[in-house]
Amino acid sequence: MRVLVLHGPNLNLLGTREPHLYGTTTLAEIDAELAERGRRAGAAVESYQSNVEGELVTRVQKARGTADGIVINPAAYTHTSVALRDALEAVALPAIEVHLTNLHRREPFRRESLTAPACVGTIMGFGARSYTLALEALLGILGKPA
Amino acid sequence: MRVLVLHGPNLNLLGTREPHLYGTTTLAEIDAELAERGRRAGAAVESYQSNVEGELVTRVQKARGTADGIVINPAAYTHTSVALRDALEAVALPAIEVHLTNLHRREPFRRESLTAPACVGTIMGFGARSYTLALEALLGILGKPA
Amino acid sequence: MRVLVLHGPNLNLLGTREPHLYGTTTLAEIDAELAERGRRAGAAVESYQSNVEGELVTRVQKARGTADGIVINPAAYTHTSVALRDALEAVALPAIEVHLTNLHRREPFRRESLTAPACVGTIMGFGARSYTLALEALLGILGKPA
Amino acid sequence: MRVLVLHGPNLNLLGTREPHLYGTTTLAEIDAELAERGRRAGAAVESYQSNVEGELVTRVQKARGTADGIVINPAAYTHTSVALRDALEAVALPAIEVHLTNLHRREPFRRESLTAPACVGTIMGFGARSYTLALEALLGILGKPA
Amino acid sequence: MRVLVLHGPNLNLLGTREPHLYGTTTLAEIDAELAERGRRAGAAVESYQSNVEGELVTRVQKARGTADGIVINPAAYTHTSVALRDALEAVALPAIEVHLTNLHRREPFRRESLTAPACVGTIMGFGARSYTLALEALLGILGKPA
Amino acid sequence: MRVLVLHGPNLNLLGTREPHLYGTTTLAEIDAELAERGRRAGAAVESYQSNVEGELVTRVQKARGTADGIVINPAAYTHTSVALRDALEAVALPAIEVHLTNLHRREPFRRESLTAPACVGTIMGFGARSYTLALEALLGILGKPA
Amino acid sequence: MRVLVLHGPNLNLLGTREPHLYGTTTLAEIDAELAERGRRAGAAVESYQSNVEGELVTRVQKARGTADGIVINPAAYTHTSVALRDALEAVALPAIEVHLTNLHRREPFRRESLTAPACVGTIMGFGARSYTLALEALLGILGKPA
Amino acid sequence: MRVLVLHGPNLNLLGTREPHLYGTTTLAEIDAELAERGRRAGAAVESYQSNVEGELVTRVQKARGTADGIVINPAAYTHTSVALRDALEAVALPAIEVHLTNLHRREPFRRESLTAPACVGTIMGFGARSYTLALEALLGILGKPA
Amino acid sequence: MRVLVLHGPNLNLLGTREPHLYGTTTLAEIDAELAERGRRAGAAVESYQSNVEGELVTRVQKARGTADGIVINPAAYTHTSVALRDALEAVALPAIEVHLTNLHRREPFRRESLTAPACVGTIMGFGARSYTLALEALLGILGKPA
Amino acid sequence: MRVLVLHGPNLNLLGTREPHLYGTTTLAEIDAELAERGRRAGAAVESYQSNVEGELVTRVQKARGTADGIVINPAAYTHTSVALRDALEAVALPAIEVHLTNLHRREPFRRESLTAPACVGTIMGFGARSYTLALEALLGILGKPA
Amino acid sequence: MRVLVLHGPNLNLLGTREPHLYGTTTLAEIDAELAERGRRAGAAVESYQSNVEGELVTRVQKARGTADGIVINPAAYTHTSVALRDALEAVALPAIEVHLTNLHRREPFRRESLTAPACVGTIMGFGARSYTLALEALLGILGKPA
Amino acid sequence: MRVLVLHGPNLNLLGTREPHLYGTTTLAEIDAELAERGRRAGAAVESYQSNVEGELVTRVQKARGTADGIVINPAAYTHTSVALRDALEAVALPAIEVHLTNLHRREPFRRESLTAPACVGTIMGFGARSYTLALEALLGILGKPA
Repeated sequence: MRVLVLHGPNLNLLGTREPHLYGTTTLAEIDAELAERGRRAGAAVESYQSNVEGELVTRVQKARGTADGIVINPAAYTHTSVALRDALEAVALPAIEVHLTNLHRREPFRRESLTAPACVGTIMGFGARSYTLALEALLGILGKPA
Repeated sequence: MRVLVLHGPNLNLLGTREPHLYGTTTLAEIDAELAERGRRAGAAVESYQSNVEGELVTRVQKARGTADGIVINPAAYTHTSVALRDALEAVALPAIEVHLTNLHRREPFRRESLTAPACVGTIMGFGARSYTLALEALLGILGKPA
Repeated sequence: MRVLVLHGPNLNLLGTREPHLYGTTTLAEIDAELAERGRRAGAAVESYQSNVEGELVTRVQKARGTADGIVINPAAYTHTSVALRDALEAVALPAIEVHLTNLHRREPFRRESLTAPACVGTIMGFGARSYTLALEALLGILGKPA
Repeated sequence: MRVLVLHGPNLNLLGTREPHLYGTTTLAEIDAELAERGRRAGAAVESYQSNVEGELVTRVQKARGTADGIVINPAAYTHTSVALRDALEAVALPAIEVHLTNLHRREPFRRESLTAPACVGTIMGFGARSYTLALEALLGILGKPA
Repeated sequence: MRVLVLHGPNLNLLGTREPHLYGTTTLAEIDAELAERGRRAGAAVESYQSNVEGELVTRVQKARGTADGIVINPAAYTHTSVALRDALEAVALPAIEVHLTNLHRREPFRRESLTAPACVGTIMGFGARSYTLALEALLGILGKPA
Repeated sequence: MRVLVLHGPNLNLLGTREPHLYGTTTLAEIDAELAERGRRAGAAVESYQSNVEGELVTRVQKARGTADGIVINPAAYTHTSVALRDALEAVALPAIEVHLTNLHRREPFRRESLTAPACVGTIMGFGARSYTLALEALLGILGKPA
Repeated sequence: MRVLVLHGPNLNLLGTREPHLYGTTTLAEIDAELAERGRRAGAAVESYQSNVEGELVTRVQKARGTADGIVINPAAYTHTSVALRDALEAVALPAIEVHLTNLHRREPFRRESLTAPACVGTIMGFGARSYTLALEALLGILGKPA
Repeated sequence: MRVLVLHGPNLNLLGTREPHLYGTTTLAEIDAELAERGRRAGAAVESYQSNVEGELVTRVQKARGTADGIVINPAAYTHTSVALRDALEAVALPAIEVHLTNLHRREPFRRESLTAPACVGTIMGFGARSYTLALEALLGILGKPA
Repeated sequence: MRVLVLHGPNLNLLGTREPHLYGTTTLAEIDAELAERGRRAGAAVESYQSNVEGELVTRVQKARGTADGIVINPAAYTHTSVALRDALEAVALPAIEVHLTNLHRREPFRRESLTAPACVGTIMGFGARSYTLALEALLGILGKPA
Repeated sequence: MRVLVLHGPNLNLLGTREPHLYGTTTLAEIDAELAERGRRAGAAVESYQSNVEGELVTRVQKARGTADGIVINPAAYTHTSVALRDALEAVALPAIEVHLTNLHRREPFRRESLTAPACVGTIMGFGARSYTLALEALLGILGKPA
Repeated sequence: MRVLVLHGPNLNLLGTREPHLYGTTTLAEIDAELAERGRRAGAAVESYQSNVEGELVTRVQKARGTADGIVINPAAYTHTSVALRDALEAVALPAIEVHLTNLHRREPFRRESLTAPACVGTIMGFGARSYTLALEALLGILGKPA
Repeated sequence: MRVLVLHGPNLNLLGTREPHLYGTTTLAEIDAELAERGRRAGAAVESYQSNVEGELVTRVQKARGTADGIVINPAAYTHTSVALRDALEAVALPAIEVHLTNLHRREPFRRESLTAPACVGTIMGFGARSYTLALEALLGILGKPA
């Protein structure tokens, strides 16, 4: 059981940028937590972050044959990237979209998601916990409940 | 620790209506599962379903003082009820919006949620599991992780 | 052969309210006429009126197993009720939408119907006769032409 | 009592084109059925089909003085012809708009009708039976119920 | 001289919910104040609150013959209820729409009122005083100035 | 000096249809008046009416080499015909758009003109006089003031 | 206690223009009535009318230091003047917007108010009485109930 | 017979500004031409120009009793002035809207006219001749054809 | 192998109208070129032009049984004809939409194509060569590459 | 070298109104600073403020022949004045639009500028310094860099 | 004669992803076919694929001086990349936009192309053959017909 | 005092591409000018250009701690990059948006800026001088006026 976790642009700043909005947990801490949870459930969890849209596309493509499912926080690319959506549809792996904040409470342009229709479901609004809930949901879909 | 689970209109048909879309699990089975999970985490889970918007509003109001958090699937009222939104804002309890299906894959009018801005977060697309993930998220917020 | 006739909000005032617009026939007279026509065609016709959206939803749900088809005038809920639409789709019975007036000649917001996509067809503009035409059409669909 | 039945573009293909959508009844069969029903009710029914918008306009104009009412299926011109609407308003005869299919279940651009505001009412979704229901409704309006 | 005062959904929470927004006066206090003011002007004032749209519709309908005018705060149904609008138009009594807050300063969806066109006028933005101003305006219309 | 006057669909009914809206002058009388006015100014005026969009297109095309300018009342095709617009642009003759009524006072869909951008100018709202004003304007443009 | 009453464009015609719509009371009579009511409550009421947007802006500005509150009927500028809105916000005095008629019953462009968000509240639909209700509301806000 | 000709903002620059767009005729020359034409037809023509919206409103108001009809080129205020529209409706004189250029060929925001619905008709696109055509049309309406 | 080539309104002027936009090749030359190319590939190519929408509809209908594929330049009807779209869908032959110019570089209303969804593909922007490329593409689809 | 500086409505309040938003510098101080900077660069700087749209239009017109360039802060008229735009285009002098605040951070209706297309460029967001930057930019354009 | 062929994001998966939609031909096979066809026509064809928007921009820039024309399938960037459009306009080489599928038959957001206005023309809907048709069209434009 | 200057996609072509639009100054010359001006004011100016959105995002992130302010011309990414906006907000340094041309005079899609709300202000329309004005404005904000 292999899970790919993808982080979009600016998430490398997590824990240091705007903590009143995103909390103080760093991306490394989130990745460590996910890896540990995966390990306990018998799943290998690999994480990847990039600010470059095309690199995220390429990473999604490589998941075919190397991963069984994807947890993805497309961040700003949620609202602008048709390329990520196409990549997710092309690899045809179960994917779950994650957001730290409740997008319904932010600017109107953050309401629309181009990538969500290519995912199984969406979890948003729970901070770093959004990721662990998504991992749990994905393992359930893959027949490996935590 | 007391949790109120609210089901909106037509969810009483769950498990019997359109199984290709909503699965074969009934609402009673979901409620039993949630109660059992709550019990194990030391939380009392109470469920309520109604087809009447005003009855759901009244039930939300009564949650003040009798519950510590809400898991709500507003179903069709997600898209039309300002009254539910006002009620959720008035009681000021942490609430989580749940949907069985990924609304991003259905009719366009199901993309807009009037109730989501009054909730902490949203979980959608995982069938009956959407509810158990939401319960877990809510218990985490209430300081009682499962 | 059993037919359910549903009347939405304010239709209980029929025959007394704005007769220049809706005529002087009362709802009781329409229901009697439909029952008589049904009787002659060997069909039991039962009528129900409510001003409450959720009660109409519940009545649609109960039609499963107790009726073979539905004639429905959703009145004001035509334009605002996703819940009625979901209920009609869930019970999967042939339904016909009826309106006394030609909505195309009234206010613009009456042009849009949320419930029509869940029905077989629509008949509008013929006053009380809209109901009898719909009953006839429904019996035809059920293989019982008048 | 004279009734004019008008068929818009592509309806001459009826019964041969897309039978899963429009059924296998031909236009000639519909016209024969309408003529027979009219004859029994003491009404002369004349039918006319054209693919040319302007010819349909001219035919509507000629109805003044030669017909007492109109049953019209404008087909594709429903959504694009201001000229047909103007013609129907100019002759000031009772007209009923007919559609074989439920337009609410098709492409969004088929939801809008330019011609319906110039008609008494609309009947849609019952296949060939939409025509006979419309004939019956028209005879009722003309004081000649079937 | 009889006046009906109607309160829409969530107003039963008045004085206890969000006092920074709605003040600390309760609905019972408002109703008492209105009754006292009515009494001094020789008018019987009756109040009614419901969270259910259809119950409010029914109450409006019953006003015909039992009241001479209506003061109504439709709250959340202001923006979604065609049924209330139809009811107000059907009973044809002078009605005044009331809001505690200035809706122009709140969320955009609160700018549109479906019920206002069925009323004589609107008073908003003065807290509980909006009601007393409306009562005074209504008595003036009924020829019974305070 | 040769002028082509074009009348769109339903204008052949002029003087007989809806006189409260369009007056009692017939199209023949308008054409006679225009011919007489043209004769006095030394210009040959030829008129043509059709209900068929494509025939009007063809007639515009033939104007190249046989007319020096065009007065056109596209009637209903004003709002729907890109073909007429293309034809007017292709022949590159000065054209003036004419309407009997003030379109700003009618239905909103009559506000938009697809053909006007292909014309020198527009005159609307003066009944039959709109045509004579347009003829005068056209002769002025052609250097032949009446 | 000093109150400024501002009247926008065309209100100088009041009582003489379209009496079926605006009644026969003149602006002078309204101003006299307001001054008298103010006098009884111990408040000086000064009125001002202009057809010029910029002059109204200037008059609002001068209110700072010379008035304690404003009653304003912006008339046509309600829908077009960002300048008046800015002025009202700049002087930061309590202001109440007034309209003689119920704008919700008039043309759609009168539904939107640019100035209302800069006011405490709005009163519309009671003819000349709208002004006296507004004066009463303003005095209440200023701690000087009539 | 008295005619008022009104020119809106920037028209005082006519003949000197952008001659490729507006021609080289000055406003004084237009006014002289209109006065001369009026004189020949037995009508007194008075012209007035202002850049200030309120002054134009006031001038329209004064036309009641001092003029029998109005020719108005509202220029930029065509698209923004509800006040001019109200003034034109208030004085209830026949008015004709004039534009030098064909607004359908300019920027989109020039397509909409707030003032046209308050006028009998519109003439645009003929340069200075638009005024003389409008004068002729107005005299015809007043029973004084040139 | 039989191919039908259809030309919409105004294309009969090709080569003579606006050569800076459409080039100097005439429609006859295009048809000759297509016939010759077809002949070399063993396919009979027949061409037809009409300015009348309904005649084009009829010609598409006749293609069933007399042609194996269609190359169509709907010209102005691209943007306004639901009837042509319905006809193309009814005959169910492979069709290719052609345009001489790149519609993306022209007026915004030319961006939308009602007919394209009923075609296999679109080729635009290459002048007369658009046709020969479309013929080649169609022959390829029919298994007869040039 | 002569420069005209124009200030729109409400800017006369600068330095006294909402200092948290606009700072404490007065308009007189800004004008003095601009005059001094101009003097050092050998340019005469004249300033003018008005709350009346038409007076600003007239002042722009007078700049022809009396100024070589314009710095203009249209304030509220930025978003509503077609007349100012027309005036700026008519005088054909280089003009620079200035705003004290960053309009992209304020209400949505302040995003659109009607006047900007008539200017060389825009400078916004730097408080009083926006003016001095604009003066420097204008002198650079006029070949007189500071 | 040198031709640059550019492939946008996800096209590297061609032939392996969603074959029911895109066919089984791989990108390498397409590139080989294009090179061979180019060779026969005396043209050097070079291909390049990237998932990164900025790398495609850079590759377009380098085409200046190293290629005579461009065939580009921007894939997902068709709908989101202003940068690619700017690059195409900057190099000023003839470019042809290519799509494997008919975008008019897919999601609405795929109808809009930001890049097409910077190209000579568009060819879509013919699978891998879209590329060869585009190469042929480009060679024709460059005076080197295949 | 350290200033980062960022140039978006295609700006590396400056001075060579479309000189009628962007002038003949190269990006190297602009950077040299900015460095020299910075040096004179005691500020170190570093410049960076990339065609890749994600690389610009990364460069903005690195500014935290290595620069005191940012001058950024996002070019095409102005209209499409939520990621750049998020990055600018995350580093919380004063940033100024720059454009060579006046975007209000170009295509409509260039009117909207996603990045401007994350900047202090905007300067556009002055060619290469836009940069030097922005540098001056930034130094002023940082307390180091040139």
